[in-house]
Amino acid sequence: MNIEIKRHSLSHIMAQAIKEMYPNVKMAIGPNIENWFYYDFDFGSEEIKEENLKELEKKMKKIISQNQKFEQYDLDFDEALSYLKEKNEDYKVEMAMELKEKWINKISFYKNIMQNWNISYIDMCSGPHVENSNKLDSNAYKLDKIAWAYWKWDSNNKMLTRIYWLAFDTREELDNHIKLLEEAKKRDHRVLWKKLKLFTFSDKVWLGLPLWLPAGWMLWKQVEDFWKETHEKAWYDFVRTPHIGNKILWETSGHWGFYADSMYPPMEVWQSLEEAKVWEKAKESETFLLKPMNCPFHVEIYNDEPKSYRDFPLRWAESGTVYRFEKKWQLNWLTRVRGFTQDDAHIICRLDQVEDELKKVVNFILYIFESFWFDKNKIKVYLSLRDPNNKEKYSWNDEWWDFTQSVLEKVAKEMKLDYIAEEWEAAFYWPKLDFKIKDVLGREWQCSTLQFDFNLPNRFDMTFTNSNWEQERPYMLHRALFWSFERFLWLLIENYAWVFPLWLAPKQVIIIPVWENFMDYADKVYNKLKENWIRVSLDSSADSLNKKVRNAEKMHINYILVVWEQEEKDNSVSVRNYKTKEQIVEKVDNFINKVKIEVVEKKL
Amino acid sequence: MNIEIKRHSLSHIMAQAIKEMYPNVKMAIGPNIENWFYYDFDFGSEEIKEENLKELEKKMKKIISQNQKFEQYDLDFDEALSYLKEKNEDYKVEMAMELKEKWINKISFYKNIMQNWNISYIDMCSGPHVENSNKLDSNAYKLDKIAWAYWKWDSNNKMLTRIYWLAFDTREELDNHIKLLEEAKKRDHRVLWKKLKLFTFSDKVWLGLPLWLPAGWMLWKQVEDFWKETHEKAWYDFVRTPHIGNKILWETSGHWGFYADSMYPPMEVWQSLEEAKVWEKAKESETFLLKPMNCPFHVEIYNDEPKSYRDFPLRWAESGTVYRFEKKWQLNWLTRVRGFTQDDAHIICRLDQVEDELKKVVNFILYIFESFWFDKNKIKVYLSLRDPNNKEKYSWNDEWWDFTQSVLEKVAKEMKLDYIAEEWEAAFYWPKLDFKIKDVLGREWQCSTLQFDFNLPNRFDMTFTNSNWEQERPYMLHRALFWSFERFLWLLIENYAWVFPLWLAPKQVIIIPVWENFMDYADKVYNKLKENWIRVSLDSSADSLNKKVRNAEKMHINYILVVWEQEEKDNSVSVRNYKTKEQIVEKVDNFINKVKIEVVEKKL
Repeated sequence: MNIEIKRHSLSHIMAQAIKEMYPNVKMAIGPNIENWFYYDFDFGSEEIKEENLKELEKKMKKIISQNQKFEQYDLDFDEALSYLKEKNEDYKVEMAMELKEKWINKISFYKNIMQNWNISYIDMCSGPHVENSNKLDSNAYKLDKIAWAYWKWDSNNKMLTRIYWLAFDTREELDNHIKLLEEAKKRDHRVLWKKLKLFTFSDKVWLGLPLWLPAGWMLWKQVEDFWKETHEKAWYDFVRTPHIGNKILWETSGHWGFYADSMYPPMEVWQSLEEAKVWEKAKESETFLLKPMNCPFHVEIYNDEPKSYRDFPLRWAESGTVYRFEKKWQLNWLTRVRGFTQDDAHIICRLDQVEDELKKVVNFILYIFESFWFDKNKIKVYLSLRDPNNKEKYSWNDEWWDFTQSVLEKVAKEMKLDYIAEEWEAAFYWPKLDFKIKDVLGREWQCSTLQFDFNLPNRFDMTFTNSNWEQERPYMLHRALFWSFERFLWLLIENYAWVFPLWLAPKQVIIIPVWENFMDYADKVYNKLKENWIRVSLDSSADSLNKKVRNAEKMHINYILVVWEQEEKDNSVSVRNYKTKEQIVEKVDNFINKVKIEVVEKKL
Repeated sequence: MNIEIKRHSLSHIMAQAIKEMYPNVKMAIGPNIENWFYYDFDFGSEEIKEENLKELEKKMKKIISQNQKFEQYDLDFDEALSYLKEKNEDYKVEMAMELKEKWINKISFYKNIMQNWNISYIDMCSGPHVENSNKLDSNAYKLDKIAWAYWKWDSNNKMLTRIYWLAFDTREELDNHIKLLEEAKKRDHRVLWKKLKLFTFSDKVWLGLPLWLPAGWMLWKQVEDFWKETHEKAWYDFVRTPHIGNKILWETSGHWGFYADSMYPPMEVWQSLEEAKVWEKAKESETFLLKPMNCPFHVEIYNDEPKSYRDFPLRWAESGTVYRFEKKWQLNWLTRVRGFTQDDAHIICRLDQVEDELKKVVNFILYIFESFWFDKNKIKVYLSLRDPNNKEKYSWNDEWWDFTQSVLEKVAKEMKLDYIAEEWEAAFYWPKLDFKIKDVLGREWQCSTLQFDFNLPNRFDMTFTNSNWEQERPYMLHRALFWSFERFLWLLIENYAWVFPLWLAPKQVIIIPVWENFMDYADKVYNKLKENWIRVSLDSSADSLNKKVRNAEKMHINYILVVWEQEEKDNSVSVRNYKTKEQIVEKVDNFINKVKIEVVEKKL
């Protein structure tokens, strides 16, 4: 049975237990989220405390053991409303009104029926639920936390009490998940960013728009330099395009038609009223849109000059920052932001080059995962194909679909990708290969993608002159390896739990003089390291040696160099390796060489 | 006498000559621009041809020799209007109406009076003019070109004939200027961009928003890498901030008050009507603005955490793309765009660090100019000070003004800058040092700037804890070295006339096999160069050797390597140096080493 159904049923049991303990509580909503379920309650003047939770848990067990039956029934809108009003369920009344607005007149309820046919609980709910409460395992759920949330996420509304529970099919799964959570906490980029000063948010700049601090910038730079280097080696060229484009561009690309909901609204600049008056004409305007994608700009670059069959393959990469309007409550730190930088590239080529180009991209993707030491078992590959039962929904020509799908599948097979084929019926998706990475909690995140596009070449009438001097349409591939720098950096932060490999570490070395007398020597070492482009800092504070070392360790800096009398005499440093905890004394030049090798070899 | 007055007077003489030749011509406007003056005319069904220009010039000489007197007089609006209508001067009527809109009721005219007291010409004009036409030198002007322009730049209006003239005080100055123009033509980035495929514009992306092509991107990268490297050496940190910020940010900074005219309009995202209905509340919105400056973001980073006196100096750099709405007709290729990337940095420090920080920045600026081989005589330094007669306009405290102005002047003197002090009374300028570069036409372009800011620290209440545990306001400096990457790249393109120094060249080397048989060897050389990160391409076309060499020279590629039988035997290449035209044969390894040295040494 679907675990979601169990979680949903458990939330009714939890609400029933709460109602027994606090009869005046008003119920708000109780959905599932990922591995949890929660329920929001308005406790009014009452309060639920830690000590009450044990009791709550006990009551839930009892309810489950009563083997209550879950039974669905419908009420007409008016009946439903008067029932909910009678019960003072203000929030449910509001939700019922909402359904009415959507012209829903039959409203679904669930009642829990005891063995003695008494009704123990009623909730407005569309289900589905388990049949009987004995389908639920009393040992496979656990209170996670109590939190607070505004009704409908709106700070003008009342603050409600939210109770979160973890729930699984079996006790074993629950225990495993709790272990994962503990691990995740250590790695959580939301904890690490503050501690390590990677990025921040500002309530004036606004939600979903991260500001990258010096350490975060440096991490980003290492990844971006690597990205440029590898793309140059892979024979890509680079372009740079603006963050806004005229509305004409987005109308031509079609985004203004099918993607406008995710775009920021247009910026329309009108001539001044004065200007318009003088010319006695209707005012004129220029309208701009913030870009949610880089693609149409690359197409315009393509169309800038006529192309010939000898110009292919074109591979144009851009680390282009795009803006998409996500709703407030969908935002989530670096994983879901409103502005992000895609490591975009478009490959434009002839039919006879498609297979080779696809293989090159797949190899490139695998190379990237390997370079950052991602566990291969954490990567899942999906091949997206059109729904064969709904072919008529795809207005494009069959031949194109058949070729692109079969060549993708051929490449996936020949390259021995362990892929899952999925059929779908989306309006603006194309045949594609997606590479997803699982995070510490087992959630999958879209990372690399490789997709065909028939839309833009057609809409912008992209052509080239073939060897017979005829105009032909080229093939166009979109691909991103990281998906976005923001998301990839977040995956890296959590993947390494901030013990970054040396080549990525924002700060690689810190020098700590035992006391002031050795400041001159510390300075000398510092300058020498800096000359060698090692990212080093110097702790010149008045703190004790122990405190300085503790501070450095708190920042997870790879190498801590302590300098004292003997070190000054020998032109050496005491090196403490943060990862191995190993401690050795060595010549400064030796240390520099080792660091350089570690960086070049991109050791983990 | 001011040359502008002479040019303006010449435009009346030109119009007078035109009117003699074409009595039905309607006059539009005739302003000065830089070293030119022009006049727009509506020739109706007539046309001015090349052969008519000689006659026009002759007539102008004659008018000048008549020693006509320029005399100003005013007319009431109604009188002026009926005079202009009678003369069928439709465009002047329109302009008079415009003045009326601005509540101007007395309208200024100029008449030209001959020795015999006859009036030879009348024009609506606010002057000033020379007293007599014999103040003008008949040899110091020259027709530059005939062009076409829409009345008021609006393509819905009539196309007018525009006649451009060059005019100077003396014949010598005119000749010198013509020489400069010829030189400039060779260097013009508007010519070079197309030839060398550096950047382009698209009529769908829109005006003022350049798209950087692969070669332009590569040039940009070299400059940006240099920028990062030098800033790292100069102890700067880097940050990265979004391109939009909530309106709250721009209200706090004051930009929304005094800078809104140059900003793109707000993007206001409303809750959907449905959402608002459900909550039975006024709809809520979030409002965003595209950034015209990076400063407020850096201030928010400053305010993210409390600061202490020991944290200073902070130096935060960002290559941040900003967007400013320039009117259509103000746009001019790369010199005036609507989106550009500033090489911004903010220095935040204590009072006792200000002088030292200023000196460091001045040194940094001089180092930049030197690194790019800018002629020192082309750089002009301006020190901006407040107008001492209008002190009350500066709402900020006198002490701050006195200190910042005197420390800037002290630094300029101690560093022996040959500066010009300027007093002004602007609303949002601060004491500053500007470094301007003269282009080939002698026009000055703002490049580096170093300015104090009192506004943002106050508006955002920036503070730090000083050594007495009191809260204190830090000093804030804005500085840009290039001004923007776009403008600086343009200056570089014109400065080097595209014979880029090797370290900057988008393409450094091209390999040309004499014929197909040598393609394998050419490939080998190519791969070896690429492994050494030399920016190389390979001409594998079927063109003749001569054509391939010509093509390479057209692209100004620094080194052309020809490979043939002997070269393959010797593992060598025939190297042709584009700049020196020198031609030698050398071993591939030798060539690679020389290139590497030339790049590292940043030789011109």
